[in-house]
Amino acid sequence: VMFDTPVVVVDAAVMDRNIQRAQTVATAAGVRLRPHVKTHKSSLLAQKQLEAGATGLTCATLSEAVGLSEAGVGGDLFVAVPFYPSPSKLARIDLLLEAGSDLSLAVDNLSVAGLLAIRYPGGGPRLIVEVDSGSHRTGVDPVEALPVAAACGDLFGGVFTHGGHGYPPGMAAAAGADEVRVLAETKNRIEAAGGRVAVISAGSTPTAAHCVGDPVNEVRPGTYIFGDWQQVGNGAMALDDVAVSVMATVISAPAADRFVLDCGAKILSKDQPAWVEGYGHLPQMPGAVIERLYDNHAVVSTHGDRPPMVGDQLRVIPNHVCPVINLVDQFLLTTGDVVPVDLRGHLT
Amino acid sequence: VMFDTPVVVVDAAVMDRNIQRAQTVATAAGVRLRPHVKTHKSSLLAQKQLEAGATGLTCATLSEAVGLSEAGVGGDLFVAVPFYPSPSKLARIDLLLEAGSDLSLAVDNLSVAGLLAIRYPGGGPRLIVEVDSGSHRTGVDPVEALPVAAACGDLFGGVFTHGGHGYPPGMAAAAGADEVRVLAETKNRIEAAGGRVAVISAGSTPTAAHCVGDPVNEVRPGTYIFGDWQQVGNGAMALDDVAVSVMATVISAPAADRFVLDCGAKILSKDQPAWVEGYGHLPQMPGAVIERLYDNHAVVSTHGDRPPMVGDQLRVIPNHVCPVINLVDQFLLTTGDVVPVDLRGHLT
Repeated sequence: VMFDTPVVVVDAAVMDRNIQRAQTVATAAGVRLRPHVKTHKSSLLAQKQLEAGATGLTCATLSEAVGLSEAGVGGDLFVAVPFYPSPSKLARIDLLLEAGSDLSLAVDNLSVAGLLAIRYPGGGPRLIVEVDSGSHRTGVDPVEALPVAAACGDLFGGVFTHGGHGYPPGMAAAAGADEVRVLAETKNRIEAAGGRVAVISAGSTPTAAHCVGDPVNEVRPGTYIFGDWQQVGNGAMALDDVAVSVMATVISAPAADRFVLDCGAKILSKDQPAWVEGYGHLPQMPGAVIERLYDNHAVVSTHGDRPPMVGDQLRVIPNHVCPVINLVDQFLLTTGDVVPVDLRGHLT
Repeated sequence: VMFDTPVVVVDAAVMDRNIQRAQTVATAAGVRLRPHVKTHKSSLLAQKQLEAGATGLTCATLSEAVGLSEAGVGGDLFVAVPFYPSPSKLARIDLLLEAGSDLSLAVDNLSVAGLLAIRYPGGGPRLIVEVDSGSHRTGVDPVEALPVAAACGDLFGGVFTHGGHGYPPGMAAAAGADEVRVLAETKNRIEAAGGRVAVISAGSTPTAAHCVGDPVNEVRPGTYIFGDWQQVGNGAMALDDVAVSVMATVISAPAADRFVLDCGAKILSKDQPAWVEGYGHLPQMPGAVIERLYDNHAVVSTHGDRPPMVGDQLRVIPNHVCPVINLVDQFLLTTGDVVPVDLRGHLT
């Protein structure tokens, strides 16, 4: 088949198997699966994950949550990035509550926890306190979680963490253990002070399998649905479990050791974790390296492979699938169906 | 003013001044200005550039050209990235020709030039041969331009180059000179063989001022309309001429030396040229560095500056404006107007 390139294509059978496998693992471990929708940005695929047994959905932004609600899959939502309750954010929270969402929100500091507790005196969103388990991004130090939980008042619903330090190769098991340890410590401290910690949420695609131990009762992987080259590179997923491709056409072959594809940074993004070489992987030319990425050009070194011809179409596995999906309005399934990326953008 | 963040804001007065200045420079030098629309992806701003005196527009893709045509600004278009004439690309070319566009297309190899010459025996798109002046991306070696020009037959319209090696600091003058030299050599060689070279096109935002010498008769800068941090870093633009900002909110301040903004890679992109530090510049905290960028988090090290409070809004100048604009559906002008990014996506 000749594609109108560049285009994102997803193997439907591999994707379905990924959805099912993650659900089976979570169910067997006795934890709830709350997939992160920022990977697929699609209410259709969120629906599929819920039908497979997911108990709710994770979002990165309130506007993603509003999009899910408008698409009819806004029953149980957790916005897992801390935010400041400006008038526009509060308006979205109110919209979601009025639409009947069971809404959970990330908080990691006293001032926001206090503002929300005052704003919703009779109850409203559930506040989940983010604890830093080693990624040093957002999240309070575990010893400071208790006052933040207390500031949430009646809105306090639990604790969560993101073991982002589990992404590099060989780090997932230790980071997963950090997630469990830090959440257990925090839970114990809050319970010792008389609090009730209902939600104890952890886990990304690399760490989810390593953090399903007690007391964690929920995991939030996202990338697992599609896979990508960084998840193969760090050992979290097998190459055969990668469902996503960017199909690209050779538009120029100006030298024996170099050719150019039409998949630039405006579809591949410039994500490049330290443990992968180049800006994506070419399964048909595993020795070739996408050395340079411009907005609309990908410059590939053949490194001794026989160069393709102008007009040839090649499959590229992107380094990081989340920004790729966020660059397209829709993608193709191998079944021939088209999936709208209806939550694309939705930044606020 | 409190923004619903993250959001792209453009200073209308600075943008207008940039449009006018580039036009004045081109007019004074006696060359045509053909701005690259991939930077703003907006038919409204394309119209503004034409009204200021631009003689036509540059696109990166045929679907951008179709978008401009549909918006009523498709009179004189040059798609400056080589492509392979698949059925879907040919359909777009035909659509543009039927709509009355004066259409120029980039070619850099014999097979595509020959295919297009056969496909349009009675005339059609003008083919402009790309020559490599040192960026080693697309473009034929100058000594190989003559056979490609010959393969274009009656469609041959001229030559162009992109001196992308002029982006790093201190390189613009030499790269601009390379553009002029390589185009002059190529023109002379084609003319010596009896060809007529109407279009001689060069120039990016850093190199445009350095390549307006004879025989160049057209320049194609794009970024100049907004500016960005890499153009300040390489000396091509002054900080006061940067019109674009990403407005972001401090969502977390978990440590004395670190805070987190809500402008992640899904709005700033991960572009990071070697000559800038971090993933964007904070004019209000010039010593601070955006050290890590996740999809929805920007982790900033204060490097001794007094950290801001959760809820504070900060201006970020992005490293590279083109991918930023391509991530939003619209942006704000300081006049209060909203500019739709109607060519966003348009990858094919």
